[in-house]
Amino acid sequence: MSNEITVRAIGFIRCGYTETSQIPKGRRAIHTAEGTIEIASELEEGLTDIDGFSHLFVIWAFDRAAEGYDLLTTPPGESRARGLFATRSPRRPNPIGLTVVALLGRDGTRLRVRGLDMLDGTPVLDIKPYLSGISAEELRRGWLEEKT
Amino acid sequence: MSNEITVRAIGFIRCGYTETSQIPKGRRAIHTAEGTIEIASELEEGLTDIDGFSHLFVIWAFDRAAEGYDLLTTPPGESRARGLFATRSPRRPNPIGLTVVALLGRDGTRLRVRGLDMLDGTPVLDIKPYLSGISAEELRRGWLEEKT
Repeated sequence: MSNEITVRAIGFIRCGYTETSQIPKGRRAIHTAEGTIEIASELEEGLTDIDGFSHLFVIWAFDRAAEGYDLLTTPPGESRARGLFATRSPRRPNPIGLTVVALLGRDGTRLRVRGLDMLDGTPVLDIKPYLSGISAEELRRGWLEEKT
Repeated sequence: MSNEITVRAIGFIRCGYTETSQIPKGRRAIHTAEGTIEIASELEEGLTDIDGFSHLFVIWAFDRAAEGYDLLTTPPGESRARGLFATRSPRRPNPIGLTVVALLGRDGTRLRVRGLDMLDGTPVLDIKPYLSGISAEELRRGWLEEKT
């Protein structure tokens, strides 16, 4: 990096969401959508051993968000603007998304997953194994714990 | 995205690790290093409300990893090669890292955090609030659960 890096899709999301309005949003949203992550065929060997993990981190690109960002943004269903980095807004300095999915199975380069919250055709930048979580007892969730 | 996006640093890690050999690695590694994430001053307003979160996702760039990648890679301390996407190897198609840190406090653009596992000077690409974790009971951790 000088101060920039160029990243490219290692694969794409295939799911039923074709418009952002279809994706559950807001603090009570639960993501149960199933679909597949289709990884480029030349990378298939890199998926070896992934089957043993129950959950994966998917790092992806907000390829259809409007360009640019506001430092304060009002999350869906909220009445108050919040600092961008305290939200999952798609309009960020770097349009990178992060989603935890449950891995249901693998067929070659296709990972069947649950918990998608992105559009069909979304470019995937990386996949990492989910190794450990922070327990609910340890978590403080900022404005999400305030009354609406 | 056509098929590429260019991302740039929104800030940098400041911590005591100047060489990768200093960073705990392997399946028993515990990351307790403290340090700061220094966000670019023009983005300070975007950190509003972040103080209420106990944990953050930090998405960052492996700016000093050797270029390129191998689809099978032997993790530190292991004897068997594993598929790249089932590991946290720094040599990936897109050199993007992901770390969960505990947020200890904020002074303006400086986030004091615990749990760093990257080098001093590492470029940060994004910060997101940690909203919920997968419990240990739900997790299967693949090769990490096999005997060494």
